[in-house]
Amino acid sequence: MSNESSPQVQNLEHHECWAMLRTVSVGRLAVLADGRPDIFPVNYTVDGGTLVFRTAQGTKLAAATGGEAAVAVEADGVDPDTGLAWSVVVKGTAALVKSTEEVLETSRLYLFPWQAGRKDTFVRITPDSVTGRRFKVTDPMTWWTQINGSAKASQE
Amino acid sequence: MSNESSPQVQNLEHHECWAMLRTVSVGRLAVLADGRPDIFPVNYTVDGGTLVFRTAQGTKLAAATGGEAAVAVEADGVDPDTGLAWSVVVKGTAALVKSTEEVLETSRLYLFPWQAGRKDTFVRITPDSVTGRRFKVTDPMTWWTQINGSAKASQE
Repeated sequence: MSNESSPQVQNLEHHECWAMLRTVSVGRLAVLADGRPDIFPVNYTVDGGTLVFRTAQGTKLAAATGGEAAVAVEADGVDPDTGLAWSVVVKGTAALVKSTEEVLETSRLYLFPWQAGRKDTFVRITPDSVTGRRFKVTDPMTWWTQINGSAKASQE
Repeated sequence: MSNESSPQVQNLEHHECWAMLRTVSVGRLAVLADGRPDIFPVNYTVDGGTLVFRTAQGTKLAAATGGEAAVAVEADGVDPDTGLAWSVVVKGTAALVKSTEEVLETSRLYLFPWQAGRKDTFVRITPDSVTGRRFKVTDPMTWWTQINGSAKASQE
């Protein structure tokens, strides 16, 4: 209650992190490019303890994750029930999804491209660590409202 | 029109990038920590061609940006008029704001902490590059709705 440094920050349990990650589909991917951090929004999906996203072949992003690259993905949102914000960070290794079987399996996932255009490459992030926090947004903090629920509901 | 790779992606002009950056207050900061990328949401403000944010002293984040650190910040959103999404990436150098005068000047900015708790350190990011894109979100892409406008309007 009187924890001076951050009274209203709770760490999320591991299973809560994954539950939160499943509630949104947009995250931000941090990679190293030429020795400096770079960052991209990605449209990801959770697949058996990993994150998968699509990207266009030949992009910087594909290059950055072409080998086995250390990456971090952050996703966040606001719980509509409690009004509490959450943020989850997945750190791990990104690798291109290469085998035909694996691509086919992956493409069955409900994985929409983040933007229109050819998206030929699948990248899978295998986590080394998954951490998350829940916290009260300081009023009049501006944040985002998640439209995932309504978008899914209105898919006709 | 028939650009095969990404038909609906437009690069933003420099001034458009800054205009977009001013429309939101939450971004994601990518830093290098122990040689690996890490990523944090930050509540930033635009200040004279730089970005400024607050963070708690002694955090990983402060450590990561304690010296002159190469960082990247990404912000994104959806233009409510056009329905087009945008994403802007600022790459540059982060440095603690140290002088009393500079801190005082900075704290006059409309800069709310991202979460409740003590936020003692100001960090300024001086850009090396600012790039942005505007693109059509692929239906039924899920994205965020920005509540900045309504939050500001209902501040009573």
